[in-house]
Amino acid sequence: MDIFLDKALQKGVDVAPLGQVATYIPELAKGSVSDVGFALMDLDGHMYTRGQAEKNFTLQSITKVITLLLALEDLGKEKVFTHVHMEPTGDPFNSIMSFEVKNPEKPFNPMINAGAMVVTSLIKGETKEEKIRRILEFSGKLMGKEEVRFDQEVYLSEKETGHRNRSLAYFMKSTGIMKGDVEDILDLYFMQCSILGNCVDIACIGAVLASNGIHPITKERVVKKEHARIVKTIMTTCGMYDASGEFAVACGIPAKSGVGGGVLGAVPGRYGVGVFGPALDKKGNSIAGIEMLISLSKDLDFTIF
Amino acid sequence: MDIFLDKALQKGVDVAPLGQVATYIPELAKGSVSDVGFALMDLDGHMYTRGQAEKNFTLQSITKVITLLLALEDLGKEKVFTHVHMEPTGDPFNSIMSFEVKNPEKPFNPMINAGAMVVTSLIKGETKEEKIRRILEFSGKLMGKEEVRFDQEVYLSEKETGHRNRSLAYFMKSTGIMKGDVEDILDLYFMQCSILGNCVDIACIGAVLASNGIHPITKERVVKKEHARIVKTIMTTCGMYDASGEFAVACGIPAKSGVGGGVLGAVPGRYGVGVFGPALDKKGNSIAGIEMLISLSKDLDFTIF
Amino acid sequence: MDIFLDKALQKGVDVAPLGQVATYIPELAKGSVSDVGFALMDLDGHMYTRGQAEKNFTLQSITKVITLLLALEDLGKEKVFTHVHMEPTGDPFNSIMSFEVKNPEKPFNPMINAGAMVVTSLIKGETKEEKIRRILEFSGKLMGKEEVRFDQEVYLSEKETGHRNRSLAYFMKSTGIMKGDVEDILDLYFMQCSILGNCVDIACIGAVLASNGIHPITKERVVKKEHARIVKTIMTTCGMYDASGEFAVACGIPAKSGVGGGVLGAVPGRYGVGVFGPALDKKGNSIAGIEMLISLSKDLDFTIF
Amino acid sequence: MDIFLDKALQKGVDVAPLGQVATYIPELAKGSVSDVGFALMDLDGHMYTRGQAEKNFTLQSITKVITLLLALEDLGKEKVFTHVHMEPTGDPFNSIMSFEVKNPEKPFNPMINAGAMVVTSLIKGETKEEKIRRILEFSGKLMGKEEVRFDQEVYLSEKETGHRNRSLAYFMKSTGIMKGDVEDILDLYFMQCSILGNCVDIACIGAVLASNGIHPITKERVVKKEHARIVKTIMTTCGMYDASGEFAVACGIPAKSGVGGGVLGAVPGRYGVGVFGPALDKKGNSIAGIEMLISLSKDLDFTIF
Repeated sequence: MDIFLDKALQKGVDVAPLGQVATYIPELAKGSVSDVGFALMDLDGHMYTRGQAEKNFTLQSITKVITLLLALEDLGKEKVFTHVHMEPTGDPFNSIMSFEVKNPEKPFNPMINAGAMVVTSLIKGETKEEKIRRILEFSGKLMGKEEVRFDQEVYLSEKETGHRNRSLAYFMKSTGIMKGDVEDILDLYFMQCSILGNCVDIACIGAVLASNGIHPITKERVVKKEHARIVKTIMTTCGMYDASGEFAVACGIPAKSGVGGGVLGAVPGRYGVGVFGPALDKKGNSIAGIEMLISLSKDLDFTIF
Repeated sequence: MDIFLDKALQKGVDVAPLGQVATYIPELAKGSVSDVGFALMDLDGHMYTRGQAEKNFTLQSITKVITLLLALEDLGKEKVFTHVHMEPTGDPFNSIMSFEVKNPEKPFNPMINAGAMVVTSLIKGETKEEKIRRILEFSGKLMGKEEVRFDQEVYLSEKETGHRNRSLAYFMKSTGIMKGDVEDILDLYFMQCSILGNCVDIACIGAVLASNGIHPITKERVVKKEHARIVKTIMTTCGMYDASGEFAVACGIPAKSGVGGGVLGAVPGRYGVGVFGPALDKKGNSIAGIEMLISLSKDLDFTIF
Repeated sequence: MDIFLDKALQKGVDVAPLGQVATYIPELAKGSVSDVGFALMDLDGHMYTRGQAEKNFTLQSITKVITLLLALEDLGKEKVFTHVHMEPTGDPFNSIMSFEVKNPEKPFNPMINAGAMVVTSLIKGETKEEKIRRILEFSGKLMGKEEVRFDQEVYLSEKETGHRNRSLAYFMKSTGIMKGDVEDILDLYFMQCSILGNCVDIACIGAVLASNGIHPITKERVVKKEHARIVKTIMTTCGMYDASGEFAVACGIPAKSGVGGGVLGAVPGRYGVGVFGPALDKKGNSIAGIEMLISLSKDLDFTIF
Repeated sequence: MDIFLDKALQKGVDVAPLGQVATYIPELAKGSVSDVGFALMDLDGHMYTRGQAEKNFTLQSITKVITLLLALEDLGKEKVFTHVHMEPTGDPFNSIMSFEVKNPEKPFNPMINAGAMVVTSLIKGETKEEKIRRILEFSGKLMGKEEVRFDQEVYLSEKETGHRNRSLAYFMKSTGIMKGDVEDILDLYFMQCSILGNCVDIACIGAVLASNGIHPITKERVVKKEHARIVKTIMTTCGMYDASGEFAVACGIPAKSGVGGGVLGAVPGRYGVGVFGPALDKKGNSIAGIEMLISLSKDLDFTIF
């Protein structure tokens, strides 16, 4: 197995210079193209790492998986999917157009920004502070860590420059899709996006999904089996922005990427995977991350298809 | 002439019950369907009125004409049209879609909300307060009145519920089309929309346009000839929401309607017209207002075509 | 007056090299950038010409004015506008998108391809041959010519390569907007677009419109006053593709351009204008033609606003 | 196992009356709502059937799977995916809009009409006749049948009324996406859609996919392993129109439905499935078919997630 892990890392290192770090959030522009790494956790909790597997980064859209799981645990699937569809869309992650064209009663899916903001708005809690605390605690349970926190600089940077997300949220407010105080929900959403983690952490989340909700180390149930399965399915059809279809063909596992450079993968019944590389391709996915996942998938036969 | 004025009023009164007052701004829902009236001012300042010609209402989108004129006077046409196009659009007045689809460098025209907000953001003034004061003073010059003010209830109502405009403004902020503080610009825009006037007031604005910028009573020049001409042209192609084409064929004069029930018209070289009737048709234009303008146009041969 | 005409021609000649001849119809690509000319006809039939005023070209979209007039004469305005709206649109002339997004019951206006094809389908006649003969005869009446014909090479070229128009027509067939045999209507439309004329011919059509339907030479009524007025109005709001608004501000007269390089203008109560220059600007309008019209409008005070 | 099969059939029978047969192709409107059935084939070729499992129907969009497999075998994946993407889209199966908005170089995926027509145009063969013969022969190999034919009535009905597909094809021709003679490709496409099969036939195709390309009875390789895997992946993300995401969550297997009422499913490593019921839900999928697949999936644990 070692030889496959080394090979995958090398492939990631090789392609990383072809990508570019995200710049639309000023703080993210500080990422280093040469940071590349990954972690693999099997369902007994054994961890295999290569490269910068313990370097922290902001999880960004990967947190859409976390809040979807939490909302499902909080409210159940019937309630959650009253507020958001589960259909893939060819539109960009921040598209408003389809709301105007199709006047839908709910966003397409929980992996695009509109859907994720609606899911975030569903999280239980009296106040914004209680909600973010619950999200952080739940993230800790998934990662097997005592304490999870968010990066304040990135959070403030997103809050200050997130005009497109603000536009999207007010649009949904105007059509009645979004309930509650828009600025509070946006604030919560920006905090959530700024949650810090590393490859080991997200590999652990992936392992929870791969084992249908059982934590691989403590062997405790963290989420219901059905919720794990639903989330893996939605990750497969919608997890990699508008490259989800191509990624499914090339790699064949449920995965969710974030603009911070991380990708969370789950190989059902076998592994959780966390990969990292802040240089992104044109679709907004980690260029090294995708290369490494495809390499691992080929050599270790990950595909579910 | 009297017979034509009486006839026009009667037609307005007859159709008014077929329309509905705007409800999307809670305060506007209080308008009375039976309020119908108009005023005609010739270029010597003689005023002809019928019905509720002196009842105040909020000018709403009619103020797009006022701020466009002020921006032109403040900055000149070159500068203003660097920030907004002058093309008609078949899209609704509050559409965001075309921004996402076409990624334009500026809004279509100053008569849709997006363009009007950009025009408002161009008005000279150190602070929001100074800007609204200048808009109110300029409105007074156009109306021949000492004091013009805005309706505070309507302003607060729009500010509280204007999520779609807020979404539009943040979208333009995110693409760089809108400069400056979005909340300040929205605040100014909501104040501007709430400016109070009656048929006599807007007939006077129409007369200034009809006489190419000369005030019909004081005979002073209020705006440059070219600016009056530009604004009349844009009113003709874009003034009546997505019924502008039909209205041009039916009535044939530059006009601008507002969701408060008013319509401002200018018959080049002859009259300014102000009509009122809060019951709207499906396109958002005063149903009695349009009927009366068409009746007057036929009997008094208004058309410019 | 001579000095203004010379000046206008010079301006046209100067800008012509900045444009490009249309290439999407192979035959049109043969046009010469240096061909520039115009004709002005007053309402007594006096003709003023400069440059290549008698060189023939295919009228292309200018024929939308001809068939709209004929359809109005054939069926009356009520009937015609049951099948097509009269609203300007910011969409390109060959757009299908709005049909899918808005599912309208009829096309936006008769000056875009969709609307023009529907208008063409309304022309009276048992067969395609009879219909084109009627269109050609009616064109002759408007131009004051015995015989009008269409360019066979251009017709065949359009028929062979007009896939976008074919797509548009079948789309309208699928939604029920277009009645009748699609291939026949397309064939007729391609013939119509290929009608030949020169500046003198289209100045004469413009003069008929400018005089509300009376032929300036024969003094016979060619079309009803109301139909002339309707067509002038629609030309003003929709005649110059998505530069109609800008042209209205800059020149201020009803006009219709064609991709063959011609522009038809009507100065109500004064002149008909025909201009020509096959080099087009980015919006598809004759670059020299627009420049000359604006120059003439400024010097001879054409604007209707 | 019998009990689960009986239960599934019963569920299908129960919901069938809630759907409606397709009417947009006149011939399809003749389908009977009460026809419900399915077939399951394991990888040793054992067949389990219930209800109307041997009643023939036109495969319609299920043939998109067949031609994609054939094109992959003919040309290889590199070549095929030069002409079509593999991304899911939230747009309807017959959407043109995204072509105009996004001006893509190729259609979204081979499971929407645009993509399927492009795939069909790639099939090897000198003439239309040779191409359809090759498609029929290849269908026979997948179904394990000597002779496969298409329904002439349905073919002619589609050819006569398929204006939307014709519009789509000419649009792609106009942008250069579609090569070759449009009418020939459409003709081929309409023949392909009219291919006849029953549940047993499509279960057999499903079994070929489930076994990665090996025919379950003859044990011969029919398609390459990689091609089977690619097609299963694309079926999962795009196979059930704009209900693909919901179906993936509810059932969790690669599947492709057709408007004739059939659904083809593949349970990797285990079964091929063919279900039938001409009454469709609002998304265009067989209402009984989906119900039966979900029932089978739950009881026999089909899901790949």
